Amino acid sequence: MSMFLRRVLASGASKRAVHAPVRSFSHDAKRNAAFATWNADDKRFFEQLLRPEAVLTDLDDTASYTTDWLKKYKAHSAHQMVLKPKTTEQVSAILKYCNERGLPVVPQGGNTGLVGGSVPVHDEIVLSLGSMNNVLSFDEVSGILVCEAGCILENLDNYVAKHGYMMPLDLGAKGTCQIGGNVSTNAGGLRLLRYGSLHGTVLGVEAVLADGTVVDALSTMRKDNTGYDLKQLFIGSEGTLGVITKVSILTPPRSSSVNVALLGCEDFESVQKAFVEAKQHLGEVLSAVEFLDRQSLDMVLSQQDWTKDPLESSYPYYLLIETSGSNTEHDMEKLEAYLESAMTKGMVVDGTVAQDAVQARKLFMIREDITLALSQRGYVYKYDVSLPISQYYDIVKDTRDRLEEFGAKVVGYGHLGDCNLHLNVSTLEYDERVFQALEPFVFEWTSKYRGSISAEHGIGTHKPEYLHLSKEKNAINLMRQMKQMMDPKGILNPYKVLPETSA
Amino acid sequence: MSMFLRRVLASGASKRAVHAPVRSFSHDAKRNAAFATWNADDKRFFEQLLRPEAVLTDLDDTASYTTDWLKKYKAHSAHQMVLKPKTTEQVSAILKYCNERGLPVVPQGGNTGLVGGSVPVHDEIVLSLGSMNNVLSFDEVSGILVCEAGCILENLDNYVAKHGYMMPLDLGAKGTCQIGGNVSTNAGGLRLLRYGSLHGTVLGVEAVLADGTVVDALSTMRKDNTGYDLKQLFIGSEGTLGVITKVSILTPPRSSSVNVALLGCEDFESVQKAFVEAKQHLGEVLSAVEFLDRQSLDMVLSQQDWTKDPLESSYPYYLLIETSGSNTEHDMEKLEAYLESAMTKGMVVDGTVAQDAVQARKLFMIREDITLALSQRGYVYKYDVSLPISQYYDIVKDTRDRLEEFGAKVVGYGHLGDCNLHLNVSTLEYDERVFQALEPFVFEWTSKYRGSISAEHGIGTHKPEYLHLSKEKNAINLMRQMKQMMDPKGILNPYKVLPETSA
Repeated sequence: MSMFLRRVLASGASKRAVHAPVRSFSHDAKRNAAFATWNADDKRFFEQLLRPEAVLTDLDDTASYTTDWLKKYKAHSAHQMVLKPKTTEQVSAILKYCNERGLPVVPQGGNTGLVGGSVPVHDEIVLSLGSMNNVLSFDEVSGILVCEAGCILENLDNYVAKHGYMMPLDLGAKGTCQIGGNVSTNAGGLRLLRYGSLHGTVLGVEAVLADGTVVDALSTMRKDNTGYDLKQLFIGSEGTLGVITKVSILTPPRSSSVNVALLGCEDFESVQKAFVEAKQHLGEVLSAVEFLDRQSLDMVLSQQDWTKDPLESSYPYYLLIETSGSNTEHDMEKLEAYLESAMTKGMVVDGTVAQDAVQARKLFMIREDITLALSQRGYVYKYDVSLPISQYYDIVKDTRDRLEEFGAKVVGYGHLGDCNLHLNVSTLEYDERVFQALEPFVFEWTSKYRGSISAEHGIGTHKPEYLHLSKEKNAINLMRQMKQMMDPKGILNPYKVLPETSA
Repeated sequence: MSMFLRRVLASGASKRAVHAPVRSFSHDAKRNAAFATWNADDKRFFEQLLRPEAVLTDLDDTASYTTDWLKKYKAHSAHQMVLKPKTTEQVSAILKYCNERGLPVVPQGGNTGLVGGSVPVHDEIVLSLGSMNNVLSFDEVSGILVCEAGCILENLDNYVAKHGYMMPLDLGAKGTCQIGGNVSTNAGGLRLLRYGSLHGTVLGVEAVLADGTVVDALSTMRKDNTGYDLKQLFIGSEGTLGVITKVSILTPPRSSSVNVALLGCEDFESVQKAFVEAKQHLGEVLSAVEFLDRQSLDMVLSQQDWTKDPLESSYPYYLLIETSGSNTEHDMEKLEAYLESAMTKGMVVDGTVAQDAVQARKLFMIREDITLALSQRGYVYKYDVSLPISQYYDIVKDTRDRLEEFGAKVVGYGHLGDCNLHLNVSTLEYDERVFQALEPFVFEWTSKYRGSISAEHGIGTHKPEYLHLSKEKNAINLMRQMKQMMDPKGILNPYKVLPETSA
């Protein structure tokens, strides 16, 4: 999806989304009356603490911080402040002050999230980490990188590439998103299948708690069993338990050989079998198993500059297989053996293998262009779920049946290798009936099979009211206790992640 | 080390360790006077809740539960009870009861730990999970296993092997240790280099809190960003925050091809270079990078049935490189190319590659036999640290210099690929002067370079008083708050992990 975000940002196509009415109870939450409102004295304090240029209050200056990039979520208040600290000490002083004053704060990285987690709901102060963007150290032997939270993911990837390494995560927003935001939201993306989640690859964080306390859990060790693994508290908690200021992360060696194949399958059972076969044959070089249905491909063909099918015939299901390794010849040999086996066994009916990097890029762009094609067509209802592999496609079928009468197009695609499905519904204009038919239907369907209602995008303000469909009562209670313990005044990213207590 | 534990357990060689005086402030902690002492009524309650055979109080029956396998840590009291629940509901009822009564509890898996974490210090009730040993589900497509906490690691590995998968962790105690204990202690071991830590491979846990509340965080999804990642609280907290009753874990495809090479290096800089070269050349098939110094090899040669050096000459440093992949020919070709490059560049002076599985096993046994040889020689002072790669061997040299006058043998070996060093010191008999020279010297040395004083073994009762050398004050305070929140009466595994408040 990397091309997508950059293209959208460049072309202004994102303006299409301005009309999007976001239905989010939490984003419509009433302002918490216990919070203070920042005033001229507060502003003066921050200007002295930082420097005047690091304190923004003009709406022209704050606008890009108080709306998300798709312009779906926008702060309700015109009383806005953005702070741009340069050091951990400044972050600590800001939070200590805000906690004492009862001023709520929204930590913000690249502001590329999809669930409204990084923008204020009302007049929360935006704490932008973007000015803390130094690489602090890189160990060429171990591949361990330590950097500040505001480093842009793509810059880090380029930095470690010079030493033969790569970042263990790659996602569409890489040119804009920041590593601190990635870690705070436990970003997934394309490399998760191979390198695992950030809960495993992040070795340490430095984080500032709501009261300004700096917690140094910035280990650079792969193995460290000394007490509770505190960094985990900050990975994926979306800035509600603390503000990540530094990150230590393990980077894997960069692959010199990358191959891509697009395969057509006749039924979803064959898709599953072809996936297992890929794991057996490609084993250690398998780096992505992406899925798209015919409807997704049709969407791309109808909206983009693709003149014809990538395969000779049309198939209901497609797999996009990527290998990454250290020896091109070996990898290609493995890929060919896999394809022969999968086709002999009838799991795969037809396929094409990219012969060079340009072709590989083109095949991958089919998958990446789905999102763009959808947004070009009209309004998109987006869902990001994890499901057991056997139910992975059933939800698409059921949703399609359910929406038939409204003429909505339902497409299914995603990271099959991680059981992560992007279920997207397209209508020419926003249609309330479609929305009503989708929510909570999709979440409840997912819940029935113990899936996740948010595989990689997080909860933000979009889904707190549905959290109970993925997490049971005792678990949510424990989350509340954690929040209460670490941020008793609730100043960190309020209205996000956890549902209102009355819910 | 897999052979080691099984041999020791089988041969009774562990009795050698009986004389070991363990210096552990925490294991000598005074009994907490706030705790109740179990009585006949309590026993009756448990017998009714479970069944009479599941409640052990005879010292003959409880002995193996109240001493660790090396017989270093032993409960100080003769008033012992062991409970063997079969269901989560029973675990919940036991904890609810104990919490109300103020009875302390030690959760116990296979009792194979090395830091006294799984045995009572005084009269804590042992909650043995061994009777909860059912596999609950295995998904052949995704490789996701769900099982009860008491399943033995090796049994699980054999179980998934039938489907072409392997457990993502492998350690010496695999024939005895249980998955619940592995997860509670965040066990490391041989496969961590390739498959990462349990923080990444464990997908979910079911855990029972101190008050009996069952927290279902048993996700079977690789991606699940719905709220705080609660399972992380229980991974590596050594049973002090909750009792793990079920585990969901991602298992990788089993490798059909395994190659092993032993290499000799002239200096530690060459060792580091050879490691980097291995990552570049072997990339995706590299599965272990183990290190041993000449002193470790000498220890094995002098104590075991090894008649001669594995290489023609003697070298100060050795690397044991393992590859695991899906294609023998490819893997061997990569390994040969690596060796040629490393030898041409002078990083490696000599080496041998196993020609078959028997030879491979034999090479690996040199590494595994170090521990056994040490324990056969006399008394062993064992340290398990993580250090930045550039300081990895310096601690061995400094310790050797420091102990020269006492005639102690100092050896260094370990998982170099994870920067994890096992620093072991051998004397014929226990020598208090050696102990005094080692502690806190080793911990302080490690702390100076921001290493970890416990890379994989955990804290248990051995190291709470040194926790501050790996974790700073604010971090330890946050750990205390977590403990206070989740176990306000402190009944779960008392005297472990966190230092006494007065410390």
